[in-house]
Amino acid sequence: MDDTALRSLFDFLRFPSVSTDPARRGSVADCAAWLAQQMREAGLSAEVYPTPGHPVVVGRNKPTPGLPTVLIYGHYDVQPEDPVSEWETPPFEPTVRNGVIFARGATDNKGQIFAHLQGVAATLREHGRLPVNLIMLVEGEEEIGSPNLQAFLQEHRESLGCDVIAVSDTGMVAPGVPTLTYGLRGIAAMELRVKGPSVDLHSGIYGGAVRNPATVVAQLVASLHDSEGRIAVPEFCDGVVPLEDWERQAWAKLPFGDAQLREVTGVPSLAGEPGFTALERIWARPTAEVNGLGGGFQGVGTKTVIPKEAFAKLTFRLVPGQDPERILDLAEAYLRKRCPEGVELELIRGHSGKPYVVDPHSACGKAAQDALRRAFRGRDLALIREGGSIPIINTFKEELGVDTLLLGLALPDCRAHAPNENFPVENFYAGMALNQALLEELARVRF
Amino acid sequence: MDDTALRSLFDFLRFPSVSTDPARRGSVADCAAWLAQQMREAGLSAEVYPTPGHPVVVGRNKPTPGLPTVLIYGHYDVQPEDPVSEWETPPFEPTVRNGVIFARGATDNKGQIFAHLQGVAATLREHGRLPVNLIMLVEGEEEIGSPNLQAFLQEHRESLGCDVIAVSDTGMVAPGVPTLTYGLRGIAAMELRVKGPSVDLHSGIYGGAVRNPATVVAQLVASLHDSEGRIAVPEFCDGVVPLEDWERQAWAKLPFGDAQLREVTGVPSLAGEPGFTALERIWARPTAEVNGLGGGFQGVGTKTVIPKEAFAKLTFRLVPGQDPERILDLAEAYLRKRCPEGVELELIRGHSGKPYVVDPHSACGKAAQDALRRAFRGRDLALIREGGSIPIINTFKEELGVDTLLLGLALPDCRAHAPNENFPVENFYAGMALNQALLEELARVRF
Repeated sequence: MDDTALRSLFDFLRFPSVSTDPARRGSVADCAAWLAQQMREAGLSAEVYPTPGHPVVVGRNKPTPGLPTVLIYGHYDVQPEDPVSEWETPPFEPTVRNGVIFARGATDNKGQIFAHLQGVAATLREHGRLPVNLIMLVEGEEEIGSPNLQAFLQEHRESLGCDVIAVSDTGMVAPGVPTLTYGLRGIAAMELRVKGPSVDLHSGIYGGAVRNPATVVAQLVASLHDSEGRIAVPEFCDGVVPLEDWERQAWAKLPFGDAQLREVTGVPSLAGEPGFTALERIWARPTAEVNGLGGGFQGVGTKTVIPKEAFAKLTFRLVPGQDPERILDLAEAYLRKRCPEGVELELIRGHSGKPYVVDPHSACGKAAQDALRRAFRGRDLALIREGGSIPIINTFKEELGVDTLLLGLALPDCRAHAPNENFPVENFYAGMALNQALLEELARVRF
Repeated sequence: MDDTALRSLFDFLRFPSVSTDPARRGSVADCAAWLAQQMREAGLSAEVYPTPGHPVVVGRNKPTPGLPTVLIYGHYDVQPEDPVSEWETPPFEPTVRNGVIFARGATDNKGQIFAHLQGVAATLREHGRLPVNLIMLVEGEEEIGSPNLQAFLQEHRESLGCDVIAVSDTGMVAPGVPTLTYGLRGIAAMELRVKGPSVDLHSGIYGGAVRNPATVVAQLVASLHDSEGRIAVPEFCDGVVPLEDWERQAWAKLPFGDAQLREVTGVPSLAGEPGFTALERIWARPTAEVNGLGGGFQGVGTKTVIPKEAFAKLTFRLVPGQDPERILDLAEAYLRKRCPEGVELELIRGHSGKPYVVDPHSACGKAAQDALRRAFRGRDLALIREGGSIPIINTFKEELGVDTLLLGLALPDCRAHAPNENFPVENFYAGMALNQALLEELARVRF
């Protein structure tokens, strides 16, 4: 097999394009320029657009009137390599062991976006043209929250006009199982601060006569769920779109379930809302989670204080039918009503993002399914949602007015964001095949 | 007025006898030797006993068979002076402003124990003898938890045999109001740790299918009280000795109540167990307080994790009728029963101390009351309990088999342990008079 594509991927992986590190600013820029050159060598036109942060690279084929336009989104920036001592081989020296590429960015997202580019290159080599009008938009700030992408989309809305977007930045449920992610949860963050006495008080001298802010935080957090694990905030789940029968049936058959979840999380046993399987709870039900809890003495042993304040950092994950602002309104009203006298309650709203769902049985969804089956040679397809949030997908919907197809190539043990990030060589080649099949299938869709 | 006693107190206050500071070890020893010499000048015999830590100073008069033996306990060590920049005058250069002595140790405890010694000196000057057999035991490790005192009491049990102990290391409810503290709360400490996943999990990718340890900590802490503020652990309050009618009536008339408590704590409003006043809640009712709460993300903003573990540091304050070990057994059983599946609960027991109460209307109690009235010239006497714990009082009871009278001279704003610690000159002279009256009154008691 010709391994030119693979060797080019290794060159891509050698750039330490860590977007959060000001000392790597030059490497990030070098990586963008290199990627644009790769696009050109593949047969696309390419441009590097500066932003107030790191540049955006956009490649295109020559548009043909009448063909649908597909935008493929990805990112060339990577997470920091810390803790570097835990890497078995250096993070920016790609190494193949047992058919798996180890390097920072191997899965997230260089391996996946570069597979698309190499698929495009292969199609152009074979056929001299693509079956669609293509825009490849590869940004350099995904790992720091895409702070400049929305403005970029607004500025270039016309030239970025398209019929559908495809992203390979999600997961496969198991090795070799083609996976279409058709839903993501939304998020709404709120920090809860309870303030009581003006200073930490001696809990012997004053305990019993003043409200303990840490106790109140505990009571408010505990009040978010009923005794069986359901969210207790009234109207919180009103309007939640119920799971469809086909979803329950399809998810029950996936080669990933309770046993795998227990193993990967290391919990003694799974738990959650009654009436739903673990995957249903993660993918299709809202949550109210405490991400951080604090107040009073944090050291070893005992210090007998009533803390002057305490906090809980909450995030709610949301599913279709829920609006982040309304959820925060409901939570705020509920918490304020339940906060007792003798303390002050401060509620600070954080970031939020809407849930996302696209019909996997729409024309586009079916095209994505067919492409995945072809790329993975007929293996049973997994139609899943994911529990996390990818806010940029909603930004695409708002700014460009189109849906996004999420065709994941990441494996459950890919260690994205962690030491020894990895990506199987076969997933890279499958990604190339997926790109070729996807563009062909999407060319048949009437938009 | 002859101010020799006051000038000697200033010499006492100039020793930086900070027991916790290894660099002050010499100053602590110098202070002990100086104090023993003061005892000798007052007319007592005195000895400095080395311990594995700081020395104990013991002074005595010549025993007379048939007289009761009174042990007066105090300490010559002091808290560190940090933060030194917040002192208006240097902590170890005693300064009088508006009739108040400012210095580290002025109230806690040099001013009070030295008033006793000067009272003894005055009596010996006037009468050539004391009306009782006296033992003055002044230790140098109270501020670090008296680690060597129990062994000292055991070793010297016979020569420290006595009929009653008197301590001036508690508070007065208001300036000029003679105060007898006849009860202290006990304490029992327990740390609660909840462990779930093997690492912090992404709360999007896994949220909903695993138990969140921070949520469980909140639920367990919240379960300690019912919705009205009563402790919800079954049998927790069984056997609690109810307040007597005279206590409720006496406390209601004290010149210290809700308004002063609100002011000194700075809370928006007081709160607590229904059916009791604020002072009753602090002095005569048990509590379950969270002294520290923690888990997950502690920084600014949001980090979407399900923490792998979370904790709460609890202390229970106990009142007569409650035993610390039994209370910890009850709390442990209750928490274990309520801990849901999917996490592991670890309960770590900390230090404990029994509650203490002495009958203020016993012969000794009445003698103390009479002495306080004489020293404070007939002002209405306050009979109070305190909410804190002084474990050494129980050690005295266990090792020497006698009760302790707590005759406090500290004012509410004395700033013990804080910058600008202070003690009114008049309280020093009142303390001398109190010592003289106390020994006279105790001489009349039949033990």
